[in-house]
Amino acid sequence: MYGRYTQDLGVYAKEEAARLRESSQRRSLSDRSRSLDLLEYKGRCAKCQICTVRCQKFLISRVGEDWIFLILLGLVMALVSWGMDYCIAICLEAHKWMYGGLDSNVLLQYLAWVTYPVVLITFSAGFTQILAPQAVGSGIPEMKTILRGVVLKEYLTFKTFVAKVIGLTCALGSGMPLGKEGPFVHVASLCAALLCKFMSLFGGIYENESRNIEMLAAACAVGVGCCFAAPIGGVLFSIEVTSTFFAVRNYWRGFFAATFSAFIFRVLAVWNRDEETITALFKTRFRLDFPFDLQELPAFAVIGIASGFGGALFVYLNRLIVQFIRTQKTINRFLMKKRLLYPVLVTLIISTLTFPPGFGQFMAGKLTQKESLVTLLDNRTWAKQGIAEEFDYIGHSQAWKHPQVNVFVTLVLFIVMKFWMSALATTLPVPCGAFMPVFVIGAAFGRLVGESMAAWFPDGINTDGTIYPIVPGGYAVVGAAALAGAVTHTVSTAVIVFELTGQISHILPVMIAVILANAVAQSLQPSLYDSIIRIKKLPYLPELGWGHHEKYNIRVEDIMVRDVRYITLNCTYRDLHNVLLSGNLKTLALVETAESMILLGSIEHAQLQSLLSQQLGRSRRLEYIREQAAAEKKRLSMVSNTGSEEDSHRVSQEVRFQVRAHALEETPDPTIIFIYCNWTKASEIPETDVFVVFNFQITEWEEKQLDEQVNFNNCKIDPAPFQLVERTSLHKTHTIFSLLGLDHAYVTSIGRLIGVVSLKELRKAIEGSVTVKGVKVRPPLASFRDSGTSSSESEATELHKLWDRNKNMSLPREQTPSESDEKSQ
Amino acid sequence: MYGRYTQDLGVYAKEEAARLRESSQRRSLSDRSRSLDLLEYKGRCAKCQICTVRCQKFLISRVGEDWIFLILLGLVMALVSWGMDYCIAICLEAHKWMYGGLDSNVLLQYLAWVTYPVVLITFSAGFTQILAPQAVGSGIPEMKTILRGVVLKEYLTFKTFVAKVIGLTCALGSGMPLGKEGPFVHVASLCAALLCKFMSLFGGIYENESRNIEMLAAACAVGVGCCFAAPIGGVLFSIEVTSTFFAVRNYWRGFFAATFSAFIFRVLAVWNRDEETITALFKTRFRLDFPFDLQELPAFAVIGIASGFGGALFVYLNRLIVQFIRTQKTINRFLMKKRLLYPVLVTLIISTLTFPPGFGQFMAGKLTQKESLVTLLDNRTWAKQGIAEEFDYIGHSQAWKHPQVNVFVTLVLFIVMKFWMSALATTLPVPCGAFMPVFVIGAAFGRLVGESMAAWFPDGINTDGTIYPIVPGGYAVVGAAALAGAVTHTVSTAVIVFELTGQISHILPVMIAVILANAVAQSLQPSLYDSIIRIKKLPYLPELGWGHHEKYNIRVEDIMVRDVRYITLNCTYRDLHNVLLSGNLKTLALVETAESMILLGSIEHAQLQSLLSQQLGRSRRLEYIREQAAAEKKRLSMVSNTGSEEDSHRVSQEVRFQVRAHALEETPDPTIIFIYCNWTKASEIPETDVFVVFNFQITEWEEKQLDEQVNFNNCKIDPAPFQLVERTSLHKTHTIFSLLGLDHAYVTSIGRLIGVVSLKELRKAIEGSVTVKGVKVRPPLASFRDSGTSSSESEATELHKLWDRNKNMSLPREQTPSESDEKSQ
Repeated sequence: MYGRYTQDLGVYAKEEAARLRESSQRRSLSDRSRSLDLLEYKGRCAKCQICTVRCQKFLISRVGEDWIFLILLGLVMALVSWGMDYCIAICLEAHKWMYGGLDSNVLLQYLAWVTYPVVLITFSAGFTQILAPQAVGSGIPEMKTILRGVVLKEYLTFKTFVAKVIGLTCALGSGMPLGKEGPFVHVASLCAALLCKFMSLFGGIYENESRNIEMLAAACAVGVGCCFAAPIGGVLFSIEVTSTFFAVRNYWRGFFAATFSAFIFRVLAVWNRDEETITALFKTRFRLDFPFDLQELPAFAVIGIASGFGGALFVYLNRLIVQFIRTQKTINRFLMKKRLLYPVLVTLIISTLTFPPGFGQFMAGKLTQKESLVTLLDNRTWAKQGIAEEFDYIGHSQAWKHPQVNVFVTLVLFIVMKFWMSALATTLPVPCGAFMPVFVIGAAFGRLVGESMAAWFPDGINTDGTIYPIVPGGYAVVGAAALAGAVTHTVSTAVIVFELTGQISHILPVMIAVILANAVAQSLQPSLYDSIIRIKKLPYLPELGWGHHEKYNIRVEDIMVRDVRYITLNCTYRDLHNVLLSGNLKTLALVETAESMILLGSIEHAQLQSLLSQQLGRSRRLEYIREQAAAEKKRLSMVSNTGSEEDSHRVSQEVRFQVRAHALEETPDPTIIFIYCNWTKASEIPETDVFVVFNFQITEWEEKQLDEQVNFNNCKIDPAPFQLVERTSLHKTHTIFSLLGLDHAYVTSIGRLIGVVSLKELRKAIEGSVTVKGVKVRPPLASFRDSGTSSSESEATELHKLWDRNKNMSLPREQTPSESDEKSQ
Repeated sequence: MYGRYTQDLGVYAKEEAARLRESSQRRSLSDRSRSLDLLEYKGRCAKCQICTVRCQKFLISRVGEDWIFLILLGLVMALVSWGMDYCIAICLEAHKWMYGGLDSNVLLQYLAWVTYPVVLITFSAGFTQILAPQAVGSGIPEMKTILRGVVLKEYLTFKTFVAKVIGLTCALGSGMPLGKEGPFVHVASLCAALLCKFMSLFGGIYENESRNIEMLAAACAVGVGCCFAAPIGGVLFSIEVTSTFFAVRNYWRGFFAATFSAFIFRVLAVWNRDEETITALFKTRFRLDFPFDLQELPAFAVIGIASGFGGALFVYLNRLIVQFIRTQKTINRFLMKKRLLYPVLVTLIISTLTFPPGFGQFMAGKLTQKESLVTLLDNRTWAKQGIAEEFDYIGHSQAWKHPQVNVFVTLVLFIVMKFWMSALATTLPVPCGAFMPVFVIGAAFGRLVGESMAAWFPDGINTDGTIYPIVPGGYAVVGAAALAGAVTHTVSTAVIVFELTGQISHILPVMIAVILANAVAQSLQPSLYDSIIRIKKLPYLPELGWGHHEKYNIRVEDIMVRDVRYITLNCTYRDLHNVLLSGNLKTLALVETAESMILLGSIEHAQLQSLLSQQLGRSRRLEYIREQAAAEKKRLSMVSNTGSEEDSHRVSQEVRFQVRAHALEETPDPTIIFIYCNWTKASEIPETDVFVVFNFQITEWEEKQLDEQVNFNNCKIDPAPFQLVERTSLHKTHTIFSLLGLDHAYVTSIGRLIGVVSLKELRKAIEGSVTVKGVKVRPPLASFRDSGTSSSESEATELHKLWDRNKNMSLPREQTPSESDEKSQ
């Protein structure tokens, strides 16, 4: 919305007005037809009819209300989420059943264990590749870009929706370490976009773009909310991940939709007899009275800091893998040929390593992600007195027990293996997220620390008499939140964790660990989503770091491009042509005159192109040619009427071009007309096709056309592009760019255009001073400022210039009255 | 920050630059002095010294970091919060002790019960009145206004801090139904502002205004966070209550500081041996496995809806009381005379009604707020099988039991009485909030519904065999969150409730109830804070309602003021004078010429005033008079030199004024000079005081001065005031105004100024179409649009006008060369 605001507000406002007018006409038409219907059925029970029509009208007017839309969105997403979960559960069940049924033969078992995910992942990759390649990956980076106001093509279509939902179900059903959170944000946004389109059949309000953006923001919250049944965490996570500035006005929308969605999602589980009542997804049962001792806090802080490093490493690893595959030309070429080879290979490696009778036995390989998480959050201690064997394993926890190695080794192996596996798996070209795998790894790490603590202090730390043994499950909760927070650079994972586990007793450890993890990770690497944005080269604006003072000291004048391309109000088409040839900026500044440089507005590149093509385009060429031909014909007929046969013959000797009508239709560029020429006699020229011009005549005409002044009458001008002043600080510029989702802003000084700042310059300036190595580069011009003249002086000089201009402007005008005469022609 | 951005960015940028330059100079000076010190001490262990200096430098540079500031802020606030809680607890204890010790005589007991709060409240009211009247009330409305960019005087000073802390402690210690949340937001902001000032002694970064606003936003979160030990809820609540647009960049600041603060606040309780470990403030012990049945959800929804109405009623009642007191002139006059009478009266009424042996016995009058809340959130059922007597009351729960009436009557009485008491008490002129009283009332209402449900379904609702009795405490939690949410229009009370109780098991009921309560309350009344903002007439921007389509259909052109006051670049001082006289706008538009109307920038009113006073001010008058006098003297001396005694005599006969020097010093307005005149002879005029002008001469001079062109050289111009176009929708305008905290925006059409929209117009437009009665007024001009010309046409005409102007502009210029000549003088 804001991106559009400055870029083409004028256009947009007009379009919107036209739409509204149209829809109101349409509505009044339909009203009229309805009342006609009413008259027709007058014979019947008229009262009943009137009532029905009123109800219908009322319903249709109500459909425009936000809450109806949000309820529908929540409902649809809950159903999608539940349906997908159901399918995924069946897929995983089938995998287990196949593997379990073949326990007589290890080789067959291995084949079953490996083939199943390979087939599913290959299908998923192939399906999305064919139907909608946009569905690949998480979707959060794209949504962040879209919510910034950038239009990404094909990202919100029905095709993508189908590809994403089916692809994701298959990918998750394969049992690979992939998550559904990121894709769900995308799916929810798709749902919202499609629902908007559908609802716009009823009322015009759904065609409003700024409203759609608001709804997309709510949809992101719904996505996370119904994925984890975590409405609050969902809203917060989606805000942190997708927005830079958030309208509190939209807050309730997210909460409303996410709550409704989470409610329906959980109610479905109750109705399906999976659960007795609505509770958390991964319910924990830690003791309430004494969740942790104060002296355990250092351990939680250690988890936080370690998770910070781990999260940064994960992002780095993920990027490294993508870049390695891209830069290794031989690999790349090979993979490009056989597109499905990469997913097959990766799946093969990962599933081989997790094969339960093989290496998988040392890393609880046979557990699905959900099962691992449930066991990791268990409130019992696995390693009592350091001897793992004493623990009475039940259910899935059995998988963590191994006769030869103790539980610590299993946990360490699990963490290390899953770490690189997840980083690798998230690079697969299937719809997939990284949140859940990271969450599980974090939980395992937390459990490891917790078990170590429990082994170290078998009777707990508390010295006040009562024995409160250490709860390693609490550590797992803390670890999960911390690592997930570090990878995504969010604090709201803490809230998600509380909602997932249904317990908030560990709030302080979780908050401390998450904040520490964020502090460490943010200073080392961008978030996973920002990393993907950079890899995919989507437009972005880097965040300002933590407390970098330089931001307040760099000014727009240090980073702006002074050589602005502009057009003047009285420019000729030739100037326009030259400006358009010289670059491919999206918008051009319109100034009053080259001397005054007073900024009047900005015009889109496309608008100017159309202006130019109107002036020099085929229709005008044809018209000119036709006119010329008519004049020629007139002359000819004059000649033939008055002159003798010789005269007529002489005329037919003249070199003339006739262009066939069909040739004209085919050639897009009028200059090519002259290739399709035929010699012909003047007398043979029919009334309809008349193109009698010499080549040099056309050139002359073109030159004349180019020298004419541009007529901006039919051109859409944005009269208020965003303006900054030279002294605006980088910090403020960043704020304004991210607030309004700007792409560029003009720098003016008392109305005069003096420069332009685009996202690129801003990005450079920020990244130049926040380099990874810690060296803070100062922009070259910043140093000049300190010793420079005072700003009020410089402003005064600016004003003087303007002054002089005002005085002088009348002089050249007086000297060139021809110019103004030309204009009035 | 944003408010300032458009209003005086130029000024601000300059100030900032100057500040930075100054501070860097200062720093380099101090560095130099430090290195001088170093040289001096060279004789001693140089290495050690260097190390110390480096450490010092490092520390000072680190002090500028955000996190140090945030930790300090959190620490200070936790200490303040804990200290206040401690004092309040002692006060309440003393009250109880006095009351308990006098149980032999009811009259004495009554006197003790009543006098104590009256004295405390009177002291609190008097103290704040004398020290800092700004400390009165909640503080959240003011913080909302300040965060919008409006500068409120004296709101963030040390005096206010002292008044607020001491006043609040006394007010809460009196046992009146008042809360500490709102004032704590103010106290935290005060802390942050003072800390900023203190820290600015170390580094220049603390003088940056935009940073200070960021820190204030974090401080609001800390305020709520350390008040309830609810870091997440605190951050969210403060965002909802104070911001319209929130920078996600600032998010971590709030979380970091609030978490640290909450942590320290709870750690202090542990160290003080109040608690064994860090847990929630109002810990609940509801069962985890089956918190509620799905079929109980309608009851929760009912609580939500009823709370919505209740919340709206509370806000209405509160406003009614304030307005009643204000409008009733006799009461008002009486109260104004005896300022402390109102608090005394109110306290007397409330404490009389809660007197435990009197009416208080029917409404648990002897419980403090905290005790009531603890008992209300109890996980046991009070009314088993509808007979209250069977319940085994222990501890404070005893207070709810009455031999004659059952627990339902007690609860109803409690709710009704506390409702109006809280609404009344929050109008007292002491530092106080309304959150906690409302929270308690909500909890009581929830408990009432819960007890009714428990009486209705003694064996619970679940039909699956196992008996899960209904938990009325859960209803109390839901009711508390819902009513608090309804009064404050926030959803985050849900999160606060979870953090307060330490249990998240009722997340879905709470969310549903809070959202419903918000939906109902928001459609009936503004939030309590917005209501106070309106009562106090602070600048505000109403929120757009839920899904009002008209917002998308109203355009800026419908609401803008077309008669903009402006000044032109070549205007005379007379024009300036007239413009300044005609109104009291804060800023004026600067356009190129009255014909072109091209907007060049905006100038502050004060700037223009100073320009005018420079031109016509005393110093220039004096200078002129001095010049005149000198000329006169010269003439006189010429005359006396050349002429005879008669000539000299004739000259002395001339009427002259001499103004004494001291009279000049005293009179602020130079026109009054002429009152202090003396007849004097020319020969008697000394060199130093020379004021020899006729009155008509001065007037002539004034006229001449006024006809001169304004010299804008020393005037600070904001070169990029915010601009809108006529077709910008109301919705978008609202967004931009609240995003950037604008006060006004110019409406331009291709650079030409055509109107202005200020907060007032916007407010009118929004409130006009969202009237309480449900009648949606359409702005008078909106109807014209539908039948009007297409926008592209109108734009074209605009452009034509500009065109014509460009052509015609040279003509008048040519005809009036004198004007430009004048300019060059």
